[in-house]
Amino acid sequence: MTVTIRRLWTQPYNLQLKSALSWGQGHRLDALNHVLVFAELSDGAVGVAEATPRPSIYGETPESVAAIVAQDCAEMLIGQRIESVRDIHAAQHRLTLVKNNNTARGALDMTLHGALARSTGTALPDLIGTTAERVRVSFILGTGTLDSVLEEVRWVYDAGVRVLKVKVGKDFARETEQIQRIRQIYGPSLDLYVDANQCYSLEDADEYLHQLVDLGVLWCEEPLPVQQLRERAVLRDRDLMPLIADDSAFTLPDLEREIAFDTFDILNIKTARNGYSEAAAMLHATQSAGKGVMVGSQAGSLIGCLHALLFAAQAGVDYPTEATFFLKVHEDHSDLLTLDDGWVDMTQVRHAFQTLEARLVP
Amino acid sequence: MTVTIRRLWTQPYNLQLKSALSWGQGHRLDALNHVLVFAELSDGAVGVAEATPRPSIYGETPESVAAIVAQDCAEMLIGQRIESVRDIHAAQHRLTLVKNNNTARGALDMTLHGALARSTGTALPDLIGTTAERVRVSFILGTGTLDSVLEEVRWVYDAGVRVLKVKVGKDFARETEQIQRIRQIYGPSLDLYVDANQCYSLEDADEYLHQLVDLGVLWCEEPLPVQQLRERAVLRDRDLMPLIADDSAFTLPDLEREIAFDTFDILNIKTARNGYSEAAAMLHATQSAGKGVMVGSQAGSLIGCLHALLFAAQAGVDYPTEATFFLKVHEDHSDLLTLDDGWVDMTQVRHAFQTLEARLVP
Repeated sequence: MTVTIRRLWTQPYNLQLKSALSWGQGHRLDALNHVLVFAELSDGAVGVAEATPRPSIYGETPESVAAIVAQDCAEMLIGQRIESVRDIHAAQHRLTLVKNNNTARGALDMTLHGALARSTGTALPDLIGTTAERVRVSFILGTGTLDSVLEEVRWVYDAGVRVLKVKVGKDFARETEQIQRIRQIYGPSLDLYVDANQCYSLEDADEYLHQLVDLGVLWCEEPLPVQQLRERAVLRDRDLMPLIADDSAFTLPDLEREIAFDTFDILNIKTARNGYSEAAAMLHATQSAGKGVMVGSQAGSLIGCLHALLFAAQAGVDYPTEATFFLKVHEDHSDLLTLDDGWVDMTQVRHAFQTLEARLVP
Repeated sequence: MTVTIRRLWTQPYNLQLKSALSWGQGHRLDALNHVLVFAELSDGAVGVAEATPRPSIYGETPESVAAIVAQDCAEMLIGQRIESVRDIHAAQHRLTLVKNNNTARGALDMTLHGALARSTGTALPDLIGTTAERVRVSFILGTGTLDSVLEEVRWVYDAGVRVLKVKVGKDFARETEQIQRIRQIYGPSLDLYVDANQCYSLEDADEYLHQLVDLGVLWCEEPLPVQQLRERAVLRDRDLMPLIADDSAFTLPDLEREIAFDTFDILNIKTARNGYSEAAAMLHATQSAGKGVMVGSQAGSLIGCLHALLFAAQAGVDYPTEATFFLKVHEDHSDLLTLDDGWVDMTQVRHAFQTLEARLVP
């Protein structure tokens, strides 16, 4: 009997944050109002993944995720064969008829991988090619007063974080002071990189990146507005600091354009927005272009972070993984994962995933 | 007393099509499942516009439109002053924090223009700068067998259409045969252009566009995949036929990139996805770049077509307006608008808008 997709459904999933998160101009997050996406195959195997609706990034809401999964996606996928990863890729290909809805489609893809793993009696990490024994992680620092930021650095350092991403692009003097203070306190025991969220101009960027290099900052994410493609290629060509592509490469077609114009050094792949299928294609394309890869999580709770870590432990992912947002979330499961001097142990990740999946799947 | 936004709400709006519409790979439309978006100002003035959710183009669903308007948009807009078009632009600027959701935000923008017009006792056409006395329109031909296509040409010609957009890019031989037949029957009394929906490659495009020119086709919309930016600039530079930008310029930032790379000759502005505020900025940017402008409607019913026509009757819009989809819709209001030898009379459009608004606003 062919194994097919029998049912797709969603469930709202709300978790309070330990402290509010704000970024850019007016973005603020107090709680994770996420959506669990479930898929059941015809043999009864069920998978689960977390969709992270972000109105200000991808335009999704919890309601839009629920609607697109239960209606448009279900209409295209119910009855489709799922007996191999190749079948999931075919399902995702059908879903290219649904535009945007990145985290809904991404979660659906990871859900199907989880269901397939259960259906075939393979551990999900083995199904997707997880090989590393441990993964180095990074943490995205919140913004705020110098004191509140240093307080956050203190507790995440205590929790085992050794790489920080600092949001910059609003007030260069204030931001460099912050970075200086962190470097004074932690020295070489903490690695730092920045995310400029498209806030610099080509004119500013030269001076800013030079100064950031002098402060020991390692990489800079999206210094320029993404529509300034030519300017981004020029900046990349100046080779001041390795540049990370994130907003400029949400999808594989975006990435193809960025590779053609040679605008970045390191790609930030987010499994939450690409699922495993598109993420794998993006990893392959980026490696073929001789670029580096890091894996991000879209402010996911533990289940999203675990999905990101399983992907990040593949060959070819050579930069730290931003899968530590669970540290900021009040949830019952966070004892399942701990950091050790900047690393997570993949045996622990595998065990945590298995335990959490068993708790979440009805 | 300052006039502010008091309330935003939505209402599903379903209309049957006279015949099903299919395009591209597996897109199909039997009925318009649209959403009416309403805004009420603090002085009681109410506006209305139609959102046209298109999962396969913008990723929106009726549910996503309802959710983003009632929650995220309302949160940012309720209480904001609306006493001038400048205030609406400010409101739209706040909404740039909501990504995608193009038709929801577009409808909201047109709704606010309508409410402001009523609040200030100005006719909406005068508020937005409608000046032309008549507007030339075009019709987007459905796909199907040669006979069914010719049948559609016959009845839209009888309805007064004199410009047709033909969807191509799947089977060049079949498509050119179709175009040849139409030209044989209608000769110079019908103008034709094509929409290749990103289906050609740079290699094909040379030969295809040459042949299309020989068939008297006037313009070609989106011949190449939008991510092939360099290739599109190369093709535009070959000057085989004026190229229309649509998928490559959904938003003002997209348009800035396209102008910088000089990829098109004519911009297709769709008020349904840009509202009046962004559409006005795009019109200005395109004119400044020395390019042509046409106005499209996103398969809208009569209210959406009227909103498009009011915008199209501004100075600077120099190509036909695709605001004739109402011809395909079963609705009670379609007698409000008629075509005369390829043109619509703007006095009739103004009257039709006023009548329809009075019917739709509670």
